[in-house]
Amino acid sequence: MKIDGTHYRTIWRGEGEASVVVIDQTQLPFRFATRTLNRWQDAEEAIRTMVVRGAPCIGATAAHGMCLALAEDASDEMLETAAKGLKAARPTAINLMWAVDEMLAAVRNRPRGERLEAAWARAAEICDADVEICRRIGAHGLKLIEQAAARKKAGERVNILTHCNAGWLACVDWGTALAPIYMAHDKGLDVHVWVDETRPRNQGAALTAFELGGHGVPHTIVADNAGGHLMQAGLVDLCIVGTDRTAANGDVANKIGTYLKALAAHDNDVPFYVALPYTTIDWTLPKGVGAIPIEDRSGEEVTHLTGRTADGRIETVQVSAPGSAAGNPAFDVTPARLVTALVTERGVCPASAEGLLDLYPERRG
Amino acid sequence: MKIDGTHYRTIWRGEGEASVVVIDQTQLPFRFATRTLNRWQDAEEAIRTMVVRGAPCIGATAAHGMCLALAEDASDEMLETAAKGLKAARPTAINLMWAVDEMLAAVRNRPRGERLEAAWARAAEICDADVEICRRIGAHGLKLIEQAAARKKAGERVNILTHCNAGWLACVDWGTALAPIYMAHDKGLDVHVWVDETRPRNQGAALTAFELGGHGVPHTIVADNAGGHLMQAGLVDLCIVGTDRTAANGDVANKIGTYLKALAAHDNDVPFYVALPYTTIDWTLPKGVGAIPIEDRSGEEVTHLTGRTADGRIETVQVSAPGSAAGNPAFDVTPARLVTALVTERGVCPASAEGLLDLYPERRG
Repeated sequence: MKIDGTHYRTIWRGEGEASVVVIDQTQLPFRFATRTLNRWQDAEEAIRTMVVRGAPCIGATAAHGMCLALAEDASDEMLETAAKGLKAARPTAINLMWAVDEMLAAVRNRPRGERLEAAWARAAEICDADVEICRRIGAHGLKLIEQAAARKKAGERVNILTHCNAGWLACVDWGTALAPIYMAHDKGLDVHVWVDETRPRNQGAALTAFELGGHGVPHTIVADNAGGHLMQAGLVDLCIVGTDRTAANGDVANKIGTYLKALAAHDNDVPFYVALPYTTIDWTLPKGVGAIPIEDRSGEEVTHLTGRTADGRIETVQVSAPGSAAGNPAFDVTPARLVTALVTERGVCPASAEGLLDLYPERRG
Repeated sequence: MKIDGTHYRTIWRGEGEASVVVIDQTQLPFRFATRTLNRWQDAEEAIRTMVVRGAPCIGATAAHGMCLALAEDASDEMLETAAKGLKAARPTAINLMWAVDEMLAAVRNRPRGERLEAAWARAAEICDADVEICRRIGAHGLKLIEQAAARKKAGERVNILTHCNAGWLACVDWGTALAPIYMAHDKGLDVHVWVDETRPRNQGAALTAFELGGHGVPHTIVADNAGGHLMQAGLVDLCIVGTDRTAANGDVANKIGTYLKALAAHDNDVPFYVALPYTTIDWTLPKGVGAIPIEDRSGEEVTHLTGRTADGRIETVQVSAPGSAAGNPAFDVTPARLVTALVTERGVCPASAEGLLDLYPERRG
């Protein structure tokens, strides 16, 4: 998507034989900076230190990291070392494992002299495939926004609430939950986005707001607490969020607080949509509530915040009572009964086992 | 309640003829400091700049401000000037108007020589009456916590979730929602409190956590987003919150985000209690949802945060994407259907018109 009129992906090939450029997301939202990766260890570090984040973006970075390794040395030993090192950068990121294995499969049985070219080709394919998946999610989700627009009076905006960041910065381009919003905006629909701050890591206030602002989509940041009131007041026409893991029955694990917004949407007859690529569907998981383990992260993410002072310094401050401990569950599970529909690259379906199987019939029995 | 073993109220008479001491709440949670008020203008400033906050604490400070005015000059002119000045300090604080009018009624028809003594006596009565109301709310709410404790197995904690700060710092002592918790703790019940951070002003992380920590009540700060997951995981036995305004049908307007927690409690069969003094009941308001105007506060409360750096400096930082606007509705309305019961100084009642009228029969017909 665009930043100040220029189109970007989150990752692209740089100049020369061994160069990959990524957007340095640790500098956002206060500074837009790119970082050039020249060795596979640079890619590993970028993943580990969250210079890149979001499952598809992590996978794409790891794939390119394999290219950088092969540019240095096309041996089996290097392949093994780089694969192992990259996979360990974020041990729970499923896309990371998948992307590295894809790269291994693409080059392993080739002569050394052909490996690098094959690797760049496969890494580009992985990126293009992700963009295409997000584009399709966007096209299917766009119809839902158009339906909401059709229910409004002339001159009325379509108000969309989203939580966390399921945008292009988490992917290669477009994003998942934000893809339909970008398409609606680009098509000239008058959309406005309520951006949940998304405590404790503030991905909404920092990243989603940055993305939407960069692309020119009207939006307003709100505290996570505000969504219920906004829906009760008729100020939200639909919600759309992403998901980290989708159970086979349509339960969705997403950023902590998603469940509360789904409850409010249900209580106020506001459609609540979840956008997802097929890669997040865990077909082995019959249901999500009570079954998906929830990561407990450091309490310091709650008690301390980093931001920019009026004179431009980046400072970390404690905002809570000294001596008080904090708990930090990172995700919650929204039961399928609260989800109006799932939006995947194949279309829109009810959040149910039958709904998913209708879209993915190859998964039946 | 106690801070490090010493019992405090939020306001008390100081030494000499014209001296009132308050806890400077703008310094919390990082520094416990008191401030001495010697003139009515000091009281006005303390209210205006939120050195004191919380309706009962504001009322008590205004009452004492009238004493300070009379200590300087017991004339009718001074009474009028101070009353007008104090009332204007926080124009929407209903307790402020009430307390000043009570003081006027107590002294106006007395000779000048008797006014000061009568004023100090009435101000003390106003404080003591608030403490007694909170104590009664605590005693009634304690029974609900004891019921929850009786449902637990031996050795299991009672986990209570609260939102915002409805504690003693907002009152003169005890608090409303926190009074039952203090009583349960003092009685030896094993209670643990999940403290909602309460964005955007962080009254939970800063004030409620400070209060509970000072009194020795086990507690854990969580992001406002966490409550739904905690309830789904069976980690909350009951919720108890305060209210700024209670409609005659039991709808409650409280800090933004309260409604989301009530929805989650309802969805997970967790009792959701609202503690309130009779002064918050608006008998003229048949229902709250859609009828109580919601204050929109500055978006800067969302985009900027003040805290303490590692080396002890107080800094304000922006945490959101520069250029993105923020919305900041300060309250929401929780419909009575989501409230398990109301806890007032007269007892516990269903959140309904009938329930309230049974407790306050003098309001019938």
